[in-house]
Amino acid sequence: MNAGNAAIPAGIDTPEILVDMDILDRNIARMSQAVQAKGLALRPHAKTHKIPEIAHRQLAAGAVGLTVATIGEAEVFAAAGVMDLFIAYPLWLSPQKAERLRHLAAAAEISVGVDSEAGAAALGAGLGAAAAEVSVLVEIDSGHHRSGVQPEAAATVARAASDAGLKVAGVFTFPGHSYAPGKPLEAAAQEQEALHQAAEALSAAGFEARVMSGGSTPTALLTKASGATEVRPGVYVLGDAQQLELGRCALEDIALTVAATVVSHHPPAPGTPPRLILDAGSKILGSDRPAWATGFGRLMDHPGARITALSEHHATVEWHDDGVLPPVGTRLRVIPNHVCLAMNLVDDVAVVSRGNLMDRWVVAARGRNK
Amino acid sequence: MNAGNAAIPAGIDTPEILVDMDILDRNIARMSQAVQAKGLALRPHAKTHKIPEIAHRQLAAGAVGLTVATIGEAEVFAAAGVMDLFIAYPLWLSPQKAERLRHLAAAAEISVGVDSEAGAAALGAGLGAAAAEVSVLVEIDSGHHRSGVQPEAAATVARAASDAGLKVAGVFTFPGHSYAPGKPLEAAAQEQEALHQAAEALSAAGFEARVMSGGSTPTALLTKASGATEVRPGVYVLGDAQQLELGRCALEDIALTVAATVVSHHPPAPGTPPRLILDAGSKILGSDRPAWATGFGRLMDHPGARITALSEHHATVEWHDDGVLPPVGTRLRVIPNHVCLAMNLVDDVAVVSRGNLMDRWVVAARGRNK
Repeated sequence: MNAGNAAIPAGIDTPEILVDMDILDRNIARMSQAVQAKGLALRPHAKTHKIPEIAHRQLAAGAVGLTVATIGEAEVFAAAGVMDLFIAYPLWLSPQKAERLRHLAAAAEISVGVDSEAGAAALGAGLGAAAAEVSVLVEIDSGHHRSGVQPEAAATVARAASDAGLKVAGVFTFPGHSYAPGKPLEAAAQEQEALHQAAEALSAAGFEARVMSGGSTPTALLTKASGATEVRPGVYVLGDAQQLELGRCALEDIALTVAATVVSHHPPAPGTPPRLILDAGSKILGSDRPAWATGFGRLMDHPGARITALSEHHATVEWHDDGVLPPVGTRLRVIPNHVCLAMNLVDDVAVVSRGNLMDRWVVAARGRNK
Repeated sequence: MNAGNAAIPAGIDTPEILVDMDILDRNIARMSQAVQAKGLALRPHAKTHKIPEIAHRQLAAGAVGLTVATIGEAEVFAAAGVMDLFIAYPLWLSPQKAERLRHLAAAAEISVGVDSEAGAAALGAGLGAAAAEVSVLVEIDSGHHRSGVQPEAAATVARAASDAGLKVAGVFTFPGHSYAPGKPLEAAAQEQEALHQAAEALSAAGFEARVMSGGSTPTALLTKASGATEVRPGVYVLGDAQQLELGRCALEDIALTVAATVVSHHPPAPGTPPRLILDAGSKILGSDRPAWATGFGRLMDHPGARITALSEHHATVEWHDDGVLPPVGTRLRVIPNHVCLAMNLVDDVAVVSRGNLMDRWVVAARGRNK
């Protein structure tokens, strides 16, 4: 009847996250090969999936380590045996975080972000004798204007980190402004230029920028070995509606969907497309919606449909494919706008292959916000 | 130094959700008294808090039962001893859901929503002999245009439910279009009119609308006993930035905040307000942002500040209060835009009173999407 029904195993109830392991493995292999072919290291951002089984597949395909956003994520992946972790965040070390980071540094190779003299001093003071075990990368703002210093200020932060007893390993940036139509090329160029300038500033101050780390799924394949040593894409492994609408992946590259059921039809109204309600809302899809997105997510098997409104447990879908709404009770697959948020909303995911349920994976780092 | 620092107990690390129990109890008492004074029943929506300790406080203050959105939420609250639960959702009963709903109906007084003949038939078929134990309320669209039938169609759905062996208890609606500036009065009037029309349609078809259930924090205090028998507000218990900006609560009514730390400052730029970065992003605040909202959340002790951008672990704050940014390391309290989403992102919350940590409550129904 319907591709969604065929692709959702009968044992699955809705709403539920499905991960297609064949597509996942293809995405992992493709990014690994492309990045290695350029002579760059790949350090995937694990905040996207938060699942040790996916991390191990990335490492087996050649990733040098993982990127994470928090100490809590690092703890989960270290406990799962990942021995090289970069916390790409300008940590402020509270007493609790200091104790946890000391433990982590004793168990795995840990590097962390820093973007202020005060943050560097707090990091060194909190780590105490363990500071010598932790590398820092100075965060650079390459145009996203979130955290990070201007490239020319990198040496000041590096000096503060060094004075605090930390090892300065290099510089990193996140070109988040690449997540918009027409922006990846420009953002990638700015990213490379910022890393290059910052590395030169470090060098002039007597620090070697051994690591020059760029990032993001939109720019990873545009990054050149002349301006970086590693990249940190995250979303590529699963794909989402944002990357689809940015043209950075195709429908057949989307490995994560949310199985949902049609629970209601709108009464037909003159001048409006037919509309239906799915049982997947913002509490499983996430509610990110950039201004350029065409809706709150897409439907895998109905490219014309648009999610025009999202409540916690309802998605309102405008049906542009044809005039005939699938009946109440039909199961459809939804592509979330931002996969990192969807994954963070569930305790585990159903792993599928060719319509069969193969396994369940626990989202072990879900909710690890600190 | 800073009200945020004083109000965040030293034992709390960031980011972390704080629930102020004094404000919580005052919100519970105030809504209970106001609703009871009108002769209406109060059935708070527990999807907001998902915490049995809060539910028991609501029931102790006179709530007649709880509203929930999913069978999973109903299971959690039934296990916690709540014996009267309304699942305000047009459930489509998969085999898995049918079995769970049968178990629930054996353990507690359960009513569910229905808004289609097909849904009613599936509900009756799935429940089998247990259908007689489950009441249904026909969902009416009062202007939000999400799920629900037009008032005049209520009798058709009621008839299908009755034919399927279910008890028809009445009608319900959710005036979600009340969540916008200037809309609550109009939405409340439409809600009452829709419930009234639907009840008349049921009556004409031989069904008694014993329950006429309205809802929502923006309209609950506007609802009149002439047009409803009960109301189902949820957010009132905790408050959030949306209700604050809609004028439905004041700053001193906000019981839930997210403790966050300043981790970075933007370099000053001519013509732009000073900006800082907090360690609370969309993975703890949620990313709902209605078009009319002034940002992605508010700061409790700095009413002029605005969250102008939100990433998963970063909030970018424009500092309009004065020109002096609080130093990196300062702890501040953030008011999420939509408290129901924030609560769903954490495993437990810190319960505070006058700046002291009193308890921790588990968000027992977190992630119960089905």
